[in-house]
Amino acid sequence: MAAHPVSPLAPKTYPDLPAIAGVRFATAEAGIKYKNRTDVLLMAFDEGTVVAGVLTRSKCSSAAVDWCRANLAGGKARGLVVNSGNANAFTGLKGRDSVRQTAEIAAGALGCRIEEIFLASTGVIGEPLDASKFSGVLDETATRMADTPWIEPAKAIMTTDTYPKLSGAVLEIDGVEISINGIAKGSGMIAPDMATMLSFVVTDMPIAASALQTLLARHNQTSFNSITVDSDTSTSDTLLAFATGKAPVEPILSLDDPRAEIFGQALSDVLFELAIHVVRDGEGATKQVSVHVEGAVSDESAFRIAKAIADSPLVKTAIAGEDANWGRVVMAVGKAGEPADRDRLAIRFGDLTVARDGERAAFYDEAATSAYMKGEDLDLTVSLGLGDGKATVYTCDLTHGYITINGDYRS
Amino acid sequence: MAAHPVSPLAPKTYPDLPAIAGVRFATAEAGIKYKNRTDVLLMAFDEGTVVAGVLTRSKCSSAAVDWCRANLAGGKARGLVVNSGNANAFTGLKGRDSVRQTAEIAAGALGCRIEEIFLASTGVIGEPLDASKFSGVLDETATRMADTPWIEPAKAIMTTDTYPKLSGAVLEIDGVEISINGIAKGSGMIAPDMATMLSFVVTDMPIAASALQTLLARHNQTSFNSITVDSDTSTSDTLLAFATGKAPVEPILSLDDPRAEIFGQALSDVLFELAIHVVRDGEGATKQVSVHVEGAVSDESAFRIAKAIADSPLVKTAIAGEDANWGRVVMAVGKAGEPADRDRLAIRFGDLTVARDGERAAFYDEAATSAYMKGEDLDLTVSLGLGDGKATVYTCDLTHGYITINGDYRS
Repeated sequence: MAAHPVSPLAPKTYPDLPAIAGVRFATAEAGIKYKNRTDVLLMAFDEGTVVAGVLTRSKCSSAAVDWCRANLAGGKARGLVVNSGNANAFTGLKGRDSVRQTAEIAAGALGCRIEEIFLASTGVIGEPLDASKFSGVLDETATRMADTPWIEPAKAIMTTDTYPKLSGAVLEIDGVEISINGIAKGSGMIAPDMATMLSFVVTDMPIAASALQTLLARHNQTSFNSITVDSDTSTSDTLLAFATGKAPVEPILSLDDPRAEIFGQALSDVLFELAIHVVRDGEGATKQVSVHVEGAVSDESAFRIAKAIADSPLVKTAIAGEDANWGRVVMAVGKAGEPADRDRLAIRFGDLTVARDGERAAFYDEAATSAYMKGEDLDLTVSLGLGDGKATVYTCDLTHGYITINGDYRS
Repeated sequence: MAAHPVSPLAPKTYPDLPAIAGVRFATAEAGIKYKNRTDVLLMAFDEGTVVAGVLTRSKCSSAAVDWCRANLAGGKARGLVVNSGNANAFTGLKGRDSVRQTAEIAAGALGCRIEEIFLASTGVIGEPLDASKFSGVLDETATRMADTPWIEPAKAIMTTDTYPKLSGAVLEIDGVEISINGIAKGSGMIAPDMATMLSFVVTDMPIAASALQTLLARHNQTSFNSITVDSDTSTSDTLLAFATGKAPVEPILSLDDPRAEIFGQALSDVLFELAIHVVRDGEGATKQVSVHVEGAVSDESAFRIAKAIADSPLVKTAIAGEDANWGRVVMAVGKAGEPADRDRLAIRFGDLTVARDGERAAFYDEAATSAYMKGEDLDLTVSLGLGDGKATVYTCDLTHGYITINGDYRS
């Protein structure tokens, strides 16, 4: 399926996510761009399903994003249509017509209002998406709806992803088993200024749309909003969470409900695992890097510094070369424009201190550090020594693979 | 000399810059990092030479930058010492000691005060620079001072540059021939938040330090501050301009002097040509790209959008692949966070309109656009249709060469 070699950081196995009452789905091959693979996902939600979402802050968001933004206000969902291979972004009036037509076709197939249909498109920007491709496909797809296996929708939404991304959590609330299933796709144009390109989460938990929205936005911040592959923010970033409410427990109506914290933590776990998958399947990635910044004047300042390090091509190429080049980390701290005192900086790779008090540590161990850099999962910590602010941003290395993938993606 | 293949964008010939009265120089092989090439430059200026400078805004600037910042206040220069191979950045107290020792050695060799010595170091960050390497070298170098050829200092300051960068202008003021000679080095860690890593300009024009400073800062904005190779800002960015004042004309004492405009324009030409050289020798570069943004709400807004486009790895890899992927340009406009209206956007590659009114142009010519993309010098124009703001940022493509160069630079 993948045009490029599977990421060396791909998981060995995929979780077998359980069925969730109130949602069914099917995938299809519409041949939008890819051949011999599924590229359309149709999900149907039972009546009563609520929805929350976080969308790209790109000033040039796609027609599908605009559509979701408008419909999220209603808080109700009956259907989700996702296609891969064409982002239907920057396609003008034709793009908006295409979105509406697709929503009409889906609403017809599922028997609901178009305002209850959510749409996402991912792939090439600027090519008009022909909605007529969906007409037969969605009707036919609607006849094959099932509730497992969840790996199928995860596969249908892939673009340059080299493996499908799934994560699930099962928790108990009021003695009832609650499920949260999530899928996501990456894997370039990832500097979410909300999320990866696309991620969808479904739960059977009964919860008010407003509470779901607050939890989703909160935990998005430390998951999808804390990753970067290449500093480029997509026009189509979409994270949607659907709650079918089928679990036989009292609904969470607000965050005052103590169960919101428990549910939120499980949701956070799912979002975080999906976000990490996106990093680990970053285009060309061979290493995952967690960039920790501590001792900043504020958490926001720490985040901006961590982002500057994680976005730096020089830091990322050094990591690809297994070079503990902490000088480039200093450079990135310096360019972030945030408060920093060169002479208080300390830098660690894993547990190995390479620099402190603004210069190379006296006990710096080149051999041990070089050995550490050969690992697949690296932690890089910068201590600023100024305050209590801290943040972590997750990224991958920058390799020849990224250039190869992106030098000839469209053509 | 260069460890990497010479940039395909290198000039066929180098200008033979004239001698400038009041300045002499020599280079030497100190073996700081590189073998069998010069890595130290000593320049001596006659008494009366004034100096202006623009330095990195990195929060982690190098010891040499701090030294220059302090000495610029005096406005007088007698010597310049530049070494390549070690940036002496983030080297703590040892770094500061090393800078002072080097200045003392140079001041001794040239017979001036240490406050009149300017220093710049470029190369690896974080490795202490051993000032004792300079002691014999500078004394010996001082015995070989000459006034040409200017290609020698340009060579001595190179790091991963694949060719020396020189530019000169000769203009007539009050019937007297005035020269402006400049050299620069790049070629990664280039998103100057003032300048490329290092550039030095010398003129025989008599001009007050304050007027020179104003002109330098102004024209730096549209030259070095308008280029980017990889969005990474150096800790050592240093642009210094020295005016020996030896030309027999009345000095420019302030910008009210109408000759300041004429001199400033020639200075601007030199700075611009040097900046373009840095882009054309950007690590791994195979194409030069001028990113023009027009119709923005302000010049500043246009600059930030142009910078976002020029810094985008996805735009730059597409250009490397000769792909007119204007969708990625839209993405970059969208992520800049500046006012933009998707449905008013127009995009041109060269003179070829690929998108207008927020969608692919009806008369878009794929064959002609693809042919255009095969060129070495590309213009990419985004019209926002919002106001009169405009700006241009110069960059290069992002290729396998960049990854190769930076994956094993330090080791």
